[in-house]
Amino acid sequence: MTTAATPLPGPIDPPTRLLMGPGPINPYPSVLRSMSAPLVGQYDPFMTATMAETQALYRAVWRTDNDATVLVDGTSRAGIEAALVSLIRPGDRVLVPVFGRFGHLLAEIAERALAEVHTIEVPWGQVFPTSVLAEAVARVRPVVVALVQGDTSTTMNQPLDGIGEICARHGAMLYTDATASLCGNPFEADAWGVDAATAGLQKCLGGPSGSSPLTLSERAVEVVRSRPRVEAGIREDDDPLGAEFIRSNYFDLGMILDYWGPRRLNHHTEATSMLYAARECARLHLAEGHEAVLARHRLAGEAMLAGVRALGLETFGDLGHRMHNVLAVHIPSEVPGDAVRTELLEDFGIEIGTSFGPLHGRVWRIGTMGFNARRDAVLTTLAALGAVLARHRPHDGLAAPASEAVAAATAVYDGAGA
Amino acid sequence: MTTAATPLPGPIDPPTRLLMGPGPINPYPSVLRSMSAPLVGQYDPFMTATMAETQALYRAVWRTDNDATVLVDGTSRAGIEAALVSLIRPGDRVLVPVFGRFGHLLAEIAERALAEVHTIEVPWGQVFPTSVLAEAVARVRPVVVALVQGDTSTTMNQPLDGIGEICARHGAMLYTDATASLCGNPFEADAWGVDAATAGLQKCLGGPSGSSPLTLSERAVEVVRSRPRVEAGIREDDDPLGAEFIRSNYFDLGMILDYWGPRRLNHHTEATSMLYAARECARLHLAEGHEAVLARHRLAGEAMLAGVRALGLETFGDLGHRMHNVLAVHIPSEVPGDAVRTELLEDFGIEIGTSFGPLHGRVWRIGTMGFNARRDAVLTTLAALGAVLARHRPHDGLAAPASEAVAAATAVYDGAGA
Repeated sequence: MTTAATPLPGPIDPPTRLLMGPGPINPYPSVLRSMSAPLVGQYDPFMTATMAETQALYRAVWRTDNDATVLVDGTSRAGIEAALVSLIRPGDRVLVPVFGRFGHLLAEIAERALAEVHTIEVPWGQVFPTSVLAEAVARVRPVVVALVQGDTSTTMNQPLDGIGEICARHGAMLYTDATASLCGNPFEADAWGVDAATAGLQKCLGGPSGSSPLTLSERAVEVVRSRPRVEAGIREDDDPLGAEFIRSNYFDLGMILDYWGPRRLNHHTEATSMLYAARECARLHLAEGHEAVLARHRLAGEAMLAGVRALGLETFGDLGHRMHNVLAVHIPSEVPGDAVRTELLEDFGIEIGTSFGPLHGRVWRIGTMGFNARRDAVLTTLAALGAVLARHRPHDGLAAPASEAVAAATAVYDGAGA
Repeated sequence: MTTAATPLPGPIDPPTRLLMGPGPINPYPSVLRSMSAPLVGQYDPFMTATMAETQALYRAVWRTDNDATVLVDGTSRAGIEAALVSLIRPGDRVLVPVFGRFGHLLAEIAERALAEVHTIEVPWGQVFPTSVLAEAVARVRPVVVALVQGDTSTTMNQPLDGIGEICARHGAMLYTDATASLCGNPFEADAWGVDAATAGLQKCLGGPSGSSPLTLSERAVEVVRSRPRVEAGIREDDDPLGAEFIRSNYFDLGMILDYWGPRRLNHHTEATSMLYAARECARLHLAEGHEAVLARHRLAGEAMLAGVRALGLETFGDLGHRMHNVLAVHIPSEVPGDAVRTELLEDFGIEIGTSFGPLHGRVWRIGTMGFNARRDAVLTTLAALGAVLARHRPHDGLAAPASEAVAAATAVYDGAGA
């Protein structure tokens, strides 16, 4: 029998980190503070008002009038699974255009939901032309098209404008995973005809992982509502019991909508501290202004790009389609990529990332997201990266001094301010 | 297009509440504070060390040597579903003894996992004699027995000692949902032969909802490991692709174990703030001492019982088998139950609960859990409840003055201290 660890550890006391990887990032300070707010009961008038208020805030974040705008209590992956298992019936055809790791994830989750999954792929570092998507939708005739917007594994940002219309024309619903892209790049749920979208807090929304904002169009709600099931323990006589029930209780969006909606039907016990965090993320976003936040991310991304280029580093992928908030950089062949990351972490307290699958060890991923899409965060990261690189290639003539990288990024900021 | 709510709300600022219902309850103050701690990266040495430390703390909480002791990122219900979908193959026989709402929930989740579900029931307010469970296991021959320990809907606490042995004798695994009972009542994962158990933070662990501690025996891990699946995006050539894969990605405990284990294989992005909260809940529990916490809950429960009786109220269910941390009280027929709850909330900032299904509107549920298993919380609740009751039955002769209830509860505390 294990007894208590000896000696017991003290209260949590994390080291100071500047998180400039692909996420999670340092949350906005007021988001961290919001999680220390006291709890109230599940059906306290303050709680239900806070839930309704948070729904309204996220409608503005998603740019939608969708009534069905809620949080799923789990990480961004929980939101993805809730959307897919609630929309996909076993045997349904699902089209997944894959342009990075998270496309594979959507295919994987759809396979687990027993969909007939059809994938199309482009090489990592590219996105799909609309015409290719249109051809695939017409050919596969899917019930659902599951498409990542921003795939952090490659840093690419798939254009979505027009895709919803193509899907609707062929009777398909469009689901998109906007975890990595939302609030750092344009997203227009209604204007783009998106039927279902999910995200997480730990990227450009500037919060911690653990709550997944989700929005559903009326058409998507109809599909969910056609698969009803109410738990035996709280079922009333006239509640329907569908045969095509969703294969998950936790991710049954019908039940989650009944919990958030006027029935307030008990489902899970709301993760209230994460609700507070999600609310504060959206509130800060809207207080700064949707367009202002997008512009801040665009500027930070451009400054980081200029700085990285000034260091003599080459970028990965189609820069015309990258997300503003994360940049993939080729690790020079003569430089030990993991050693550089370790030195950045240990000597400067700065984290950058590598990537997955075919890009593992080949690229660094440098993020400029949420709270960290800031001038001082960008310049500090470039100064430190330049200093560490200089250690590893003192004689090859490629290493520009860190000061040049900082100057290049500063020029981007000053130009934008001029 | 919805734009920002006008005017934007301010930072979250909840009213002061003393949460004396069936949970969630007021977290320990240091648990709330822990969630404001800064984040670190997913693979930061501090992060992996914190995860390992948290696993060790929960082994001591669960009273187990199980290596497979982790957190599921979601509410307590997420942990239940992760355990059941990972252990149950479609078509497997599952026995669910139902003695309240949460037994129905286990049956419901097992049905969604396409199990052949067999239920047995006792009336709400009772628990199962061991002999009845033994007979059912021998008759049904289930692959999994899914049994709630403490069902908050009825406040009953099912004895588990000996049940693991019965299950093992018949080749069944024992899963138990200890959400409502853990840390307020004895739980011995190893001594009782429990194969899988899950909980939440929002009851006697004294935290917010949103993280689900889970532990698996070696036998349960073998079952999970017999159903392997690694995501395409991060799969290596020698990783197996099982046909009997678990029907959920998010709840695939094999992947979750690989994320927490030495491979640190990427799955979800850990909900770090909830990890901090879960760590602090366990740390506080062990710092106070396992037996001391159980004794504190027992004492608070006895004091509340004495006080409620002094008010002339009748309790619900088999008091010999109730949880220490929540008491169900019949609402007197002449008293408007919901009005009393509203007055307690509005005039005193105190929340108590009602219940579900057959008990909805028939009982109040009064909790004494975690941080709120305290003398001042018990006495304050009794004083306020007595005062509100006196408003509603001034002439019926049943309403003892609140002071008598407080005196009765005080006597329990003073007797224990003598």
